[in-house]
Amino acid sequence: MITQITNTELMAMEQRKRAHLINSVGGFKSVCLIGTTNKEGQTNLAIFSSIVHIGANPPLISFIMRPDSVERHTLSNILATGVYTINHINENIYKQAHQTAASYPKEISEFEATALTVEYKNEFVAPFVKESNIQLAIEFRERINLSINNTIMIIGEIVQLNFPANCLNEDGYLDIEKAGTISCSGLDSYHTTSRLQRLAYAKP
Amino acid sequence: MITQITNTELMAMEQRKRAHLINSVGGFKSVCLIGTTNKEGQTNLAIFSSIVHIGANPPLISFIMRPDSVERHTLSNILATGVYTINHINENIYKQAHQTAASYPKEISEFEATALTVEYKNEFVAPFVKESNIQLAIEFRERINLSINNTIMIIGEIVQLNFPANCLNEDGYLDIEKAGTISCSGLDSYHTTSRLQRLAYAKP
Repeated sequence: MITQITNTELMAMEQRKRAHLINSVGGFKSVCLIGTTNKEGQTNLAIFSSIVHIGANPPLISFIMRPDSVERHTLSNILATGVYTINHINENIYKQAHQTAASYPKEISEFEATALTVEYKNEFVAPFVKESNIQLAIEFRERINLSINNTIMIIGEIVQLNFPANCLNEDGYLDIEKAGTISCSGLDSYHTTSRLQRLAYAKP
Repeated sequence: MITQITNTELMAMEQRKRAHLINSVGGFKSVCLIGTTNKEGQTNLAIFSSIVHIGANPPLISFIMRPDSVERHTLSNILATGVYTINHINENIYKQAHQTAASYPKEISEFEATALTVEYKNEFVAPFVKESNIQLAIEFRERINLSINNTIMIIGEIVQLNFPANCLNEDGYLDIEKAGTISCSGLDSYHTTSRLQRLAYAKP
C-alpha cells in the first residue's frame, strides 16, 4: 500500500516528525566528522550528513550547515583558520560520532567529550580523527548563504587525502566500503553497505 | 599501510582516474533518478548522486549538475516546466538507472531507452518512475550558479511524497532501507545497506 503525503500535510506535521521524514527522503547520505580548531588551538568536532562532491578539477567538496546550531563552532573555526578536515565514520566509532552532535559548550572539545583521538600530521593546522580510516584535509574556498532558508553552503578544496593503501583501485576508484566507511539515513540511522556491483561507463 | 595523496599529486593524475577518486572520497551517496518533461511532453530521465537535504521547513532538497553534460535536458526541462520528480533506486532497477547516464539524443527518452516505466499521477506534470518505491514530486525554487567550477545547484521544494505505507515509523523516520533504496559510491558502484542502529538524540 502506498502512502501519499502532500506539501500541505507535510507543513501541518509536528516539527520534529517532519524533520525526521524530510531528512529521510533524500536517500542514503554521506556521514562524516568535520574537525576544526580555533586560533588558540581549541579543537572542535562535528558530524555532518550533507557532504557532497562538487567537482574533480579542482577537487571540490561541499556541505550544508545551519547557522543557528552547535555547528557554528565549526563555521567560525573554518573562517578563522581557513582549513578543516573531513573524516569518514566506520562501525567502530559511529556512536561517538553521533554524540558529537550534542550541544557542548565552546570550551569543551567534542574530541575529549567523545573519546575520539586528535591526530595532527603533515603540518596541516586542522585536527584529523585518528580512528577514521579515510581522512581529507580541506582548504576553505567559498561560503554561499542560501537565502531560501538561511542555511550556509561551505565549499572547500581537497588538499590532501589519507586512506588505506589496499583500498585504491587501479582506475582511481577508492573502495570506501573496504575501508569500513558507513552511511546514514534520516537524523539518526547508521548503515553498513554491501556492494552489488560496479557498472561499466554507460553508452547508448 | 596508509597512502597519502597531496593536491599536487591529485592535479597531476590522469583526468578519469582523478574523477573516480574524488567522486569516491565524499562517502556514500544518495543516488536517484530525476524525471522531467519538456513543454511538448517529451520525457527525460537522468541519474544523479549529488542529492542533499537542505532543510525541513520548508522541505527543500538540492542537487548539483554539470552544465556541459547530458544532464542539460534535465535543466532545460526544469526551467521550462518548473517541476521534476526524484525517484529512489532499488536493487531491481539500478542497472537501468545507471544506463540513463548514456548520451542519448534529445528525442530519445531515457524511459524508453532503459525500459523504465513512466508514471503520471496526482495531476503532477513531471513523470515518476513506476518501478521506484519512493517518489518525490518537486517544485523548482532556485538555481545557484557555482562560479568556482561552473556547476549548478538546483534547489526545489518537496510538494508530494509517495512511499510504501509500512516504511513510515511513528516518529516520522522513513525506513528507506526497508523500501529497498540503495546507495552508491564513486561514479559506478552500487550498494545495498544494512542498518547498524538508530541512535537516540545526542545530549551532553
